Amino acid sequence: MRLTLYTDYALRTLLYLAVHTGRRVSIREVAQTYGISENHLVKIIHHLGRGGFVHTQRGRGGGLTLGRPPEEIRVGDVVRHTEEDMALVGCMARYGEEVTPCLLSGGCRLRGVLGSALGAFMEVLDRSTLADLLQPYERQTLMHASDPTTPEP
Amino acid sequence: MRLTLYTDYALRTLLYLAVHTGRRVSIREVAQTYGISENHLVKIIHHLGRGGFVHTQRGRGGGLTLGRPPEEIRVGDVVRHTEEDMALVGCMARYGEEVTPCLLSGGCRLRGVLGSALGAFMEVLDRSTLADLLQPYERQTLMHASDPTTPEP
Repeated sequence: MRLTLYTDYALRTLLYLAVHTGRRVSIREVAQTYGISENHLVKIIHHLGRGGFVHTQRGRGGGLTLGRPPEEIRVGDVVRHTEEDMALVGCMARYGEEVTPCLLSGGCRLRGVLGSALGAFMEVLDRSTLADLLQPYERQTLMHASDPTTPEP
Repeated sequence: MRLTLYTDYALRTLLYLAVHTGRRVSIREVAQTYGISENHLVKIIHHLGRGGFVHTQRGRGGGLTLGRPPEEIRVGDVVRHTEEDMALVGCMARYGEEVTPCLLSGGCRLRGVLGSALGAFMEVLDRSTLADLLQPYERQTLMHASDPTTPEP
């Protein structure tokens, strides 16, 4: 069971912006920090922008900032926004998308049980915000470690 | 977020056997019922056999039966057995397997929060057995609907 890499990168981008609140961050900087393609990241950031998670300022001196304070960005909301497919198995797919129809579906509670399990999963993620993910006393270290203007030791 | 198709088919195979307790089922029958490749299914069944979920009787009159009563097969145990990768994101991968190293990992609680969410997910699945998934009053319908010896209406 995996979240998509798309969600993985989206969360990391938001965490990076949360660590660097107070300044604008370039897409290149995030891409280089995580070793991901800038083109791929552009799509993710555009998507995050549509959800209000990221604000993009164009032009000189522009860059990315969080769309809301990290205390107001719930991990669950990010995952819900970036994971297109929350159907854990074929029989949970929406009507018309079902790729693997199941003869048992009429009398089988698997879908319901998996739905409850997914609910419990999301409930935990909904209790955490970006701010919760970053321990205050370690923020300094992170800002130092991931600041590209700081020379490597 | 998806479970693998492998797990999906493993669960369906077990459910099929649970519906048809009392007789031996052929691999071909399960493969045809769900429209999956027999070769693929053989691997899944071998894997389920190693976990004690399925018993295979070779030779004439042989076939598949559940390795334990459906009341004793927890959905969580099946998922744990068949999902190789329970690392939801790159930074949760085991040491040496990390494909996408993250600079933030030292000060980031994402791994912990996702771990808790996964725990909540598995807890729900551990509360359900195969028997719970099949509603008794619908078993009859299922046996009828999926029995290849019954002519199509």
